[in-house]
Amino acid sequence: MRVEIWTDIACPWCYVGKARFDKALEAFPHRDQVEVVHRSFELDPGRAKDDVQPVISMLTKKYGMSEAQAQAGEENLGAQAAAEGLAYRTRDRDHGNTFDMHRLLHFAKEQGRQDELIQILYRANFADERSVFSEGHERLVELAVAAGLDADAARTVLADPTAYADDVRADEREAAELGANGVPFFVLDRKYGVSGAQPTELFAQALTQAWGERPPLQLIDKGDAEACGPDGCAVPQP
Amino acid sequence: MRVEIWTDIACPWCYVGKARFDKALEAFPHRDQVEVVHRSFELDPGRAKDDVQPVISMLTKKYGMSEAQAQAGEENLGAQAAAEGLAYRTRDRDHGNTFDMHRLLHFAKEQGRQDELIQILYRANFADERSVFSEGHERLVELAVAAGLDADAARTVLADPTAYADDVRADEREAAELGANGVPFFVLDRKYGVSGAQPTELFAQALTQAWGERPPLQLIDKGDAEACGPDGCAVPQP
Repeated sequence: MRVEIWTDIACPWCYVGKARFDKALEAFPHRDQVEVVHRSFELDPGRAKDDVQPVISMLTKKYGMSEAQAQAGEENLGAQAAAEGLAYRTRDRDHGNTFDMHRLLHFAKEQGRQDELIQILYRANFADERSVFSEGHERLVELAVAAGLDADAARTVLADPTAYADDVRADEREAAELGANGVPFFVLDRKYGVSGAQPTELFAQALTQAWGERPPLQLIDKGDAEACGPDGCAVPQP
Repeated sequence: MRVEIWTDIACPWCYVGKARFDKALEAFPHRDQVEVVHRSFELDPGRAKDDVQPVISMLTKKYGMSEAQAQAGEENLGAQAAAEGLAYRTRDRDHGNTFDMHRLLHFAKEQGRQDELIQILYRANFADERSVFSEGHERLVELAVAAGLDADAARTVLADPTAYADDVRADEREAAELGANGVPFFVLDRKYGVSGAQPTELFAQALTQAWGERPPLQLIDKGDAEACGPDGCAVPQP
């Protein structure tokens, strides 16, 4: 079974929702047969690459909240994160464009290190004192190395703005086609969708339901074709 | 959409079938949204690692064919391969255990190089003069490097007989669960199966059918949950 998760690194509910999903997956009896793929979704695609702002200012400017409302939201998120055992820095986080991180996540997918990298990026963005937005590419290279990627290869990907850019956009198009307006958005075997940081129990139920309802395979065959089996390679007669 | 292909490197119809499938995929309008994954299937899992035999002797001993029948089979395969533009050495090929190649293919999958490696292994086994069975691990390391893998990493995988062994066995269990008795066995989105080296037209039809019948996503939701969208991160009221 395959679970695809559309997320943004700048999305706190993705950070919390991933932890809830991971708990459900950890307890799922068929977890070894579940493949998890991370898909790209930018919450703020129009933000310029050099436009980095404190989260609180971003919230007040973009969404018209008061500073107190914005700070209360961060405290609420911090409490929900803590309930999942996640560190969360409720003050002085910043916000910026995540396109390069999504490109890097696609490179990490090719290298079998995507889940490692997304966990490291989440933690860096939501819990670390250092910014993932304002220190340039070398900060991301450092995080890529922590995820087991090669520093020079990561640097090359980051330096070329077209590298994996089409993959990011293809994911975003697919999200729209699947009807995802927000993230996290979980898709199980392209059949079931789960929207938002639902409780662990809901993820457990979704995994069980999707697993139980896997359809029996329908064979599309035009009569026998040449194949090999334990009894040898058959050659059908003309 | 995802296509999983159960194959064995020692399976000539897998070599031919993969070329036919690739032609259908090349012409498929949504090919950029099709992911291909190779799954392990051993035709001859009981064969000892050091038991390497000429293909003709293996066929006469294992399947009770005459030498002339076995050679005629190879000539037939050579002709079918040629029809797909594939080189095929009809004389003096050998046969052996493929478990280490399957382990290496799982490593290659993690590195994003699985399709490259399987093409190189097929070609080495079916067209090259040199054996993939009798020259030990260094021959496979050489082929891994040709597929873009790191030599030392490939050597480490090959030297540890437990590395990726569970992945190979998990694929083989899944093949049995899906009802595959022989290979190649193609599975589209875990919904449609195609058995054997079918004609390119049949693969084209299967891709079109599986694409057209992708089910609409069913949402499994317990009311709204916390999510972030272009309009911000919502916090539902208790």
